[in-house]
Amino acid sequence: MHAETSTGALSDAKALSALARQHGCLTIVDAVTSLGGVPLLVDEWQLDAVYSGSQKCLSCVPGLSPVTFSPKAVEKMQNRTSKVQSWFLDQSLVLAYWSGKGKRSYHHTAPVNSLYALHESLLMLKEEGLENAWQRHRDMHELLKAELEALGIAFLVDADHRLPQLNAVAVPEGIDDAAVRATLLNDYNLEIGAGLGALAGKAWRIGLMGYAAKRENVALCAKALKDVLS
Amino acid sequence: MHAETSTGALSDAKALSALARQHGCLTIVDAVTSLGGVPLLVDEWQLDAVYSGSQKCLSCVPGLSPVTFSPKAVEKMQNRTSKVQSWFLDQSLVLAYWSGKGKRSYHHTAPVNSLYALHESLLMLKEEGLENAWQRHRDMHELLKAELEALGIAFLVDADHRLPQLNAVAVPEGIDDAAVRATLLNDYNLEIGAGLGALAGKAWRIGLMGYAAKRENVALCAKALKDVLS
Repeated sequence: MHAETSTGALSDAKALSALARQHGCLTIVDAVTSLGGVPLLVDEWQLDAVYSGSQKCLSCVPGLSPVTFSPKAVEKMQNRTSKVQSWFLDQSLVLAYWSGKGKRSYHHTAPVNSLYALHESLLMLKEEGLENAWQRHRDMHELLKAELEALGIAFLVDADHRLPQLNAVAVPEGIDDAAVRATLLNDYNLEIGAGLGALAGKAWRIGLMGYAAKRENVALCAKALKDVLS
Repeated sequence: MHAETSTGALSDAKALSALARQHGCLTIVDAVTSLGGVPLLVDEWQLDAVYSGSQKCLSCVPGLSPVTFSPKAVEKMQNRTSKVQSWFLDQSLVLAYWSGKGKRSYHHTAPVNSLYALHESLLMLKEEGLENAWQRHRDMHELLKAELEALGIAFLVDADHRLPQLNAVAVPEGIDDAAVRATLLNDYNLEIGAGLGALAGKAWRIGLMGYAAKRENVALCAKALKDVLS
């Protein structure tokens, strides 16, 4: 789990991948929220199976999951002996589409409109520059952090492991979590995430992902939170 | 298989469903190409699990599969004892979303843009009238049939079992199937389907589905085929 959105933590995928390799293991990496928002160096970190989502830092419509496999992961799939239960997710059928090798028989009708949308979102990312997009996420996070800390709101995750695109902060003492979120949504058309699991009622999760990671959103969030909290 | 697009045959889903019930069986019905194009009376025919596609006679973007389950099908799913292999397609999790019963925990990010598209396509169908849409598919099929038969092209399926939205016809004797299809595509921007399996090289499959089932398409197809064949 590269970018863990329930806690706002960024894991060290590079170190975990190296550890896995030391033990002869392959890695499968959830990069749903990391791709486009923070560095994700698939080849350099030697990640084996990586999947993401279109609707987070890629700013595209939801419904697609970009995936990539290392040669070792492909070899593993091609050598499996048990039957794949799912036609829909059978990568051996989908890989035949991609590779040009073997019989390219019909597998599915592609969601072409969504694929065009993803193509456009990737062009937008290319125009901005991937490194610039990472920097923009960091910059907007720093802006928001300064604003939140001025309001006495603390981050849940140590600075070194924070996700810039998902800011998990503690609900201040004595504040009614649900009431604040409802007022933000109803009066400011601004939705921030609730805490999940052990953090229910205790955390807010403020997304700044892709297209949404911009100064006006930080400004609105900071001012709206200040107004509501006072 | 209600509307079998590889052969252009319409099955008698009502009779098959009755037969299944006589033997205590549930039915699962592939209605991908039938929904919106020909009568599909899910409740009246007592079909148990029915799935369709958004991109055929509903004229919507591809990527969604409308599904419906009878109470018996839901009961069957709820009483299963083996583990569902696929999170993605685990209907017990999805049903909890729909029913409002049980814990409605997060399952997936919905492809909301595609859902809006489907909503709009269903509104368009409602405005036309479902029965009118069926009639339009029949009318366009009859028009195309007259044109094709005038060219000496014969249908593969008996008249009583033909799909109006997928016209499967025999490639005339001595005609180069692939050359005709390539010319139609390159010179007329018109794609017709090739035969599959045992029908490869011997059949053409001409779709008239949803938005595409209209007079100008029939006219273009008839004239283009006539030109190319001569």
